[in-house]
Amino acid sequence: MTDFFGDIAPIRYEGPDSRNEFAFRHYDADAVIAGKTMREHLRFAVAYWHSFAWEGGDPFGGRTFDRPWYPQDTMEAMRVKADAAFEMFRILGAPYFCWHDLDVRPEGASFAESRDRLFEWVDYVQPKMKETGVKCLWGTANMFTHKRFMSGAATNPDPDVFAYAAATVKSCIDATHRLGGENYVLWGGREGYETLLNTDMGRERQHYGRFLQMVVEYAKKIGFAGTILIEPKPQEPSKHQYDYDVGTIYGFLKDFGLEGEVKLNIEQGHAILAGHSFEHELHLARQLGILGSIDMNRNDYQSGWDTDQFPNNVPEVALAYYEILKNGGLGTGGTNFDAKVRRQSIDPEDLILSHVGGMDVCAAGLKAAAAMLKDGELEKALTERYAGWDGEAAKTMLSGDLEQAAARVEAENLDPQPRSGRQERLENLVNRYVG
Amino acid sequence: MTDFFGDIAPIRYEGPDSRNEFAFRHYDADAVIAGKTMREHLRFAVAYWHSFAWEGGDPFGGRTFDRPWYPQDTMEAMRVKADAAFEMFRILGAPYFCWHDLDVRPEGASFAESRDRLFEWVDYVQPKMKETGVKCLWGTANMFTHKRFMSGAATNPDPDVFAYAAATVKSCIDATHRLGGENYVLWGGREGYETLLNTDMGRERQHYGRFLQMVVEYAKKIGFAGTILIEPKPQEPSKHQYDYDVGTIYGFLKDFGLEGEVKLNIEQGHAILAGHSFEHELHLARQLGILGSIDMNRNDYQSGWDTDQFPNNVPEVALAYYEILKNGGLGTGGTNFDAKVRRQSIDPEDLILSHVGGMDVCAAGLKAAAAMLKDGELEKALTERYAGWDGEAAKTMLSGDLEQAAARVEAENLDPQPRSGRQERLENLVNRYVG
Amino acid sequence: MTDFFGDIAPIRYEGPDSRNEFAFRHYDADAVIAGKTMREHLRFAVAYWHSFAWEGGDPFGGRTFDRPWYPQDTMEAMRVKADAAFEMFRILGAPYFCWHDLDVRPEGASFAESRDRLFEWVDYVQPKMKETGVKCLWGTANMFTHKRFMSGAATNPDPDVFAYAAATVKSCIDATHRLGGENYVLWGGREGYETLLNTDMGRERQHYGRFLQMVVEYAKKIGFAGTILIEPKPQEPSKHQYDYDVGTIYGFLKDFGLEGEVKLNIEQGHAILAGHSFEHELHLARQLGILGSIDMNRNDYQSGWDTDQFPNNVPEVALAYYEILKNGGLGTGGTNFDAKVRRQSIDPEDLILSHVGGMDVCAAGLKAAAAMLKDGELEKALTERYAGWDGEAAKTMLSGDLEQAAARVEAENLDPQPRSGRQERLENLVNRYVG
Amino acid sequence: MTDFFGDIAPIRYEGPDSRNEFAFRHYDADAVIAGKTMREHLRFAVAYWHSFAWEGGDPFGGRTFDRPWYPQDTMEAMRVKADAAFEMFRILGAPYFCWHDLDVRPEGASFAESRDRLFEWVDYVQPKMKETGVKCLWGTANMFTHKRFMSGAATNPDPDVFAYAAATVKSCIDATHRLGGENYVLWGGREGYETLLNTDMGRERQHYGRFLQMVVEYAKKIGFAGTILIEPKPQEPSKHQYDYDVGTIYGFLKDFGLEGEVKLNIEQGHAILAGHSFEHELHLARQLGILGSIDMNRNDYQSGWDTDQFPNNVPEVALAYYEILKNGGLGTGGTNFDAKVRRQSIDPEDLILSHVGGMDVCAAGLKAAAAMLKDGELEKALTERYAGWDGEAAKTMLSGDLEQAAARVEAENLDPQPRSGRQERLENLVNRYVG
Repeated sequence: MTDFFGDIAPIRYEGPDSRNEFAFRHYDADAVIAGKTMREHLRFAVAYWHSFAWEGGDPFGGRTFDRPWYPQDTMEAMRVKADAAFEMFRILGAPYFCWHDLDVRPEGASFAESRDRLFEWVDYVQPKMKETGVKCLWGTANMFTHKRFMSGAATNPDPDVFAYAAATVKSCIDATHRLGGENYVLWGGREGYETLLNTDMGRERQHYGRFLQMVVEYAKKIGFAGTILIEPKPQEPSKHQYDYDVGTIYGFLKDFGLEGEVKLNIEQGHAILAGHSFEHELHLARQLGILGSIDMNRNDYQSGWDTDQFPNNVPEVALAYYEILKNGGLGTGGTNFDAKVRRQSIDPEDLILSHVGGMDVCAAGLKAAAAMLKDGELEKALTERYAGWDGEAAKTMLSGDLEQAAARVEAENLDPQPRSGRQERLENLVNRYVG
Repeated sequence: MTDFFGDIAPIRYEGPDSRNEFAFRHYDADAVIAGKTMREHLRFAVAYWHSFAWEGGDPFGGRTFDRPWYPQDTMEAMRVKADAAFEMFRILGAPYFCWHDLDVRPEGASFAESRDRLFEWVDYVQPKMKETGVKCLWGTANMFTHKRFMSGAATNPDPDVFAYAAATVKSCIDATHRLGGENYVLWGGREGYETLLNTDMGRERQHYGRFLQMVVEYAKKIGFAGTILIEPKPQEPSKHQYDYDVGTIYGFLKDFGLEGEVKLNIEQGHAILAGHSFEHELHLARQLGILGSIDMNRNDYQSGWDTDQFPNNVPEVALAYYEILKNGGLGTGGTNFDAKVRRQSIDPEDLILSHVGGMDVCAAGLKAAAAMLKDGELEKALTERYAGWDGEAAKTMLSGDLEQAAARVEAENLDPQPRSGRQERLENLVNRYVG
Repeated sequence: MTDFFGDIAPIRYEGPDSRNEFAFRHYDADAVIAGKTMREHLRFAVAYWHSFAWEGGDPFGGRTFDRPWYPQDTMEAMRVKADAAFEMFRILGAPYFCWHDLDVRPEGASFAESRDRLFEWVDYVQPKMKETGVKCLWGTANMFTHKRFMSGAATNPDPDVFAYAAATVKSCIDATHRLGGENYVLWGGREGYETLLNTDMGRERQHYGRFLQMVVEYAKKIGFAGTILIEPKPQEPSKHQYDYDVGTIYGFLKDFGLEGEVKLNIEQGHAILAGHSFEHELHLARQLGILGSIDMNRNDYQSGWDTDQFPNNVPEVALAYYEILKNGGLGTGGTNFDAKVRRQSIDPEDLILSHVGGMDVCAAGLKAAAAMLKDGELEKALTERYAGWDGEAAKTMLSGDLEQAAARVEAENLDPQPRSGRQERLENLVNRYVG
Repeated sequence: MTDFFGDIAPIRYEGPDSRNEFAFRHYDADAVIAGKTMREHLRFAVAYWHSFAWEGGDPFGGRTFDRPWYPQDTMEAMRVKADAAFEMFRILGAPYFCWHDLDVRPEGASFAESRDRLFEWVDYVQPKMKETGVKCLWGTANMFTHKRFMSGAATNPDPDVFAYAAATVKSCIDATHRLGGENYVLWGGREGYETLLNTDMGRERQHYGRFLQMVVEYAKKIGFAGTILIEPKPQEPSKHQYDYDVGTIYGFLKDFGLEGEVKLNIEQGHAILAGHSFEHELHLARQLGILGSIDMNRNDYQSGWDTDQFPNNVPEVALAYYEILKNGGLGTGGTNFDAKVRRQSIDPEDLILSHVGGMDVCAAGLKAAAAMLKDGELEKALTERYAGWDGEAAKTMLSGDLEQAAARVEAENLDPQPRSGRQERLENLVNRYVG
């Protein structure tokens, strides 16, 4: 193995009072809560992308990190990187990882070479996966970094780019399938526009829908049993991204008959960019039956771009897991840290400790959410608030027409009186579990 | 007639060089452009709501206006208000007006009295409409001001409020129908939530969808031939509003089988609040076949709430009308100024001149849009950009599968090269018409 | 006393495990922490404004509350309101309250009558204050609701409004002084503009600065020993407010020689509107020596207006009190809840419980902050990070010139290497106290 | 010369009706307007940074451009780049250019080598400047890209970085001086923080102030007669940047006695990020006497990051130049396009035409602004609005005290009545010039 992380030992659970920063205070993987172990509930995944491929640059600055696998343009670097990645998975006790093709292998001189390199990486990590027990949560294709995708992948004005994207996704699904991946993700970072002046959204939307259908058909054909996920994000790098948010994607899926085939990978930071709270997006996806997986990384509330920070606010995270528990869990999905250490966090230790902190925040949030659900007071308040709708009169009204409803208003001289929404009391109640 | 507006004479077109602020410099109602008169294209409407019912208050301040129809709680005040409103329509030469029930009559002691008062207003204005030729663009129900609607109308946890809302909408459609209104609008200002903690979005969404179906069914039943419109807005006054934006509403309509029955009334300011440009929302609605009407009032780009200002930026307005012209016009819809003079604009003249300015900005925008469309350079650039998709190979690819596309990539060793998106050149081109 | 709050007994501390929503779980007023009781640290104040004067309206809705002191336009209503207010202070055990003139008495027919009514209220509550021991944290003048102030108070284009504002502030300082108020606050909700087109910021800024000088001079003259505070807010209701944020106000105070005379009352929600975190504004004010008092009410991160909600996120609040503790406390200032229950929270119980929750969140935050400070790990990390600046070489460099610094770079061939900023590790550390 | 731009001829003025995209429709350099030629008013500058150093990357994508001077890591590339740059200046007829050290020369192995390379570039371009007549508007140091500056330059926790920054700025001022540059700019992209947890703003602010003093002192010492400018920006890449906006910087300058020494280079996009309109920042800087120069590049109103687009909205630009004209021009400052073509605008023609469009928009805006000022109606309305303040009574009041003002209110029973702010009428008036 590599000695990149020095002598950092695997992280252990030491309980809430531990002052050891290399220990979990909340994440006790084998502890059972709400009928499952925390490992099973949380299904943590580390992202190759941010932790191993990103070099610490930003729009105004070059790389700050110094890693033994730089420059990342050789297959040997790929191996060194994979060694370090699996060492980190082991140290963290992370059961899953996620990847883009470009994270794990350098671009080749041709499509075929790029694909072959991807499969070479598959061959390289399969023994590591077997040895460590670490599994693939999902794979995905990076169709946003290379300049060929600058005007879109499936929505490119050039049909050859659509073809290239199709070939790319095929190879990535193949690789995911070979790795036993439990999901396949699509993030359309360039499926959108910079200016409407050069864009035909109608046409691009049709291509995008057809592309997604082709992906679903191919996954079925090869027997890939995982879930196909798409990931909402409203903008950045593009001015507008078609997969704007949960509500928008739902209409898109309905249009192409995919609402039963595709679920969503929802990221806290992307929800914020779209003007929503994370729990809103999770709640809506749950109600629409399309909640699939989560990227557990926050955005800064005062910054208008995607900061991809590790979660650190337990009360917020608790509300997210509350929705997930009400969804009956995430199925094949999991909790991926699509988070990056800050550009100034250049030490290998920062990589480890950022994940330790994030995992602990999630574990604390899950515990609070489970307690809220078990106590049932929030649910009880909700049931009582809507109790009127469980009566026969309400059901009759819904199956009737406007005139019947209006007639009743007059016949009974209805004058409905407002009832307190009790928001602050419910907020206080939540604080009983997280405060 | 009232002398509220003093001796302001009807506004006439005097051409671009006029320095008379009581004249149009661009809006020449009978001038033909792109095959129709400007009157027919623009279909201007004045909103009773902001111009006659709003009293100049804001969250931190009381009313600043002083109108002869204050206080607005008697039927006599209703008549004085209507007199002034029609005088303004006449001065402006506005072909249409729009109204909420609460704008035009005070709330009664019972639902029946409220409804009777509404019809009394209908009786009062019908002769005025006949006399002036001013028509009703749309009517709507105010289901957000009264405290009974504080937790929603159709989405209220109390089914009696749903009933009350049903009765209210029925009465407003009836009134609109009697007035020969060309559309009926629903704006769900309280159909949303303040906190998810007391909200079951799944349940509320079902009630909301059923309500809209009932509205559509009733309109058909009574032979109302106008268009049913709903109006996107993401938030304010609520934290989240279900009719978030065009994309979200589309999915909602699909879910309830209403995408062929209901269109959208899109407001510039609401688009901004949702993180979109106005032209984006219009473009998307056009492509989805649900563009119905517009509220032509801008928000301030630096303020995070709904400022409802008159439009004043011709380049922006031109891009909006460009979408509308490409849509073949607005059908039964029109250009409604859901705009209010600023709280400090307390003079009757301000009411007139704000509309004159807004109408002129729209007229200038329309002329620019028509010229852009006639010249065809923007369209030509678009056609060229997507030309590859018109070929047989592209069509074959779309009807094929992922493997076929991938096979072609390898067989032809495809390496698609980026082509300039030419954004700045297109922006320069637009400025040829508006700058 | 009134029976408005029914039989709600004074709220007691019952400890973290209490499930009684009418109890404190964290606020133990007499418990000593970091050398003072929690009462002394937190100095809680209830705002007359939001809790007793606001009626539950919003820009789209009328009042939802039903209080025995409505309508608020008589002196009898003033007394009923005061009775209820003092009952609530007693129930909560709140040591302070805050008020605007318009909260506590109806506007009179003349300035003199308005002032006399204010003093009549002073006479009415003084015995209550004596009896209950509740004190006045600060008073202020509402110079934003009445239409005379629509274009500003001290910055109005009409000098008579400046005079009226001067008279108003004089009367409010007088009243505050008589009540033994510990501070006097100015919030310039209309000191700003709606459009630059009708605004001369230079002139208005001069008037504003002079006005503030006159206020300071008058306070001194009458022997008012309290602190004069101004309150930053960037916008709303105006498009731009001159007291934008801490940094802006600092420059303004310097310009008028007031940086030693005036401090700031900083509100979390206003910080958010200005694009800052609350802790940023507190930190900056602390470093500039102008931190005076706080309004502890949050804004919703997804809403673009001032939502004035009770605090509910302990980790955020902890960072705020950490700055306050490092400031050596708030001096004569305190923790005012300039917060309002939601428009749907119409029950008297909501008023009580919203404050109970807010007080408890602050107490929990304070405890966490005190523990952070006591442990000293955050401070130690900070000291180490800047240790280089404590050396002689650094001091020499600062007192030298550019050439000397440059010469050393070349002489020593300096090539400074980056060191990790350790952000995630510090965030983890904070979570040890709040998570 | 290079043939990078092919056979594009110098851009000529052809008048508003020209349909030649390689012509100016508004910018007629030698045409006199408001007493000066347009060239003298506008003082256009091209930015080396965005046009020649930036390679088309974004946070999610690699470079899209293909330039003969890539890779930019040799001195030969520096020369090729300079050749192309001067060719573009010539084609555009741009009288000025601006540069960062890192734009014009590759980083050396040591500070000394970096500096020597900078001077080598100076030597290389001086003959070109002489030959073409193109001058240096300003130079600046890039102290944000290299990882040594990741935690700040002058505000770095490591004093050696302060020294390195001092040496860097010295070399850049020296170079600017040798080039006859008319200003020297500082933009503190890393002078701010990512997290308050590791930041002592008080200490960093002191270092920053001292640094700026040292810069001013050095400039004087060497006889650099140009203006020292700092550039406001609120955030990005950092979470918070100390030079937040005009108001904040003013307080900072006052604190360090620099308000008479340093002026501001104000960028439209940065104003937007700080929550201000561009005209607000210009107006405030004008009133405070610190308006120095402008970066004329807009941000997208729907994107939360710095998009640095060419200006394209004439009405907005007109309001900016209106402030500049009222300032008596920009002195040594100018109109710099700190704008970049979009990532998809990969053709050399895009570079030319984006500037042509931007220059034309500025010229159109200037013409409108000059007409507004000449007609004087806006100014007249302003004068009338504040006329009350020109009277003796108002002056007496300002030099009096609170009690005197209050006494007059009572003596005269003052009840000031609101007067219309006439916002919409003034907006209509502006549209007379730009619509």
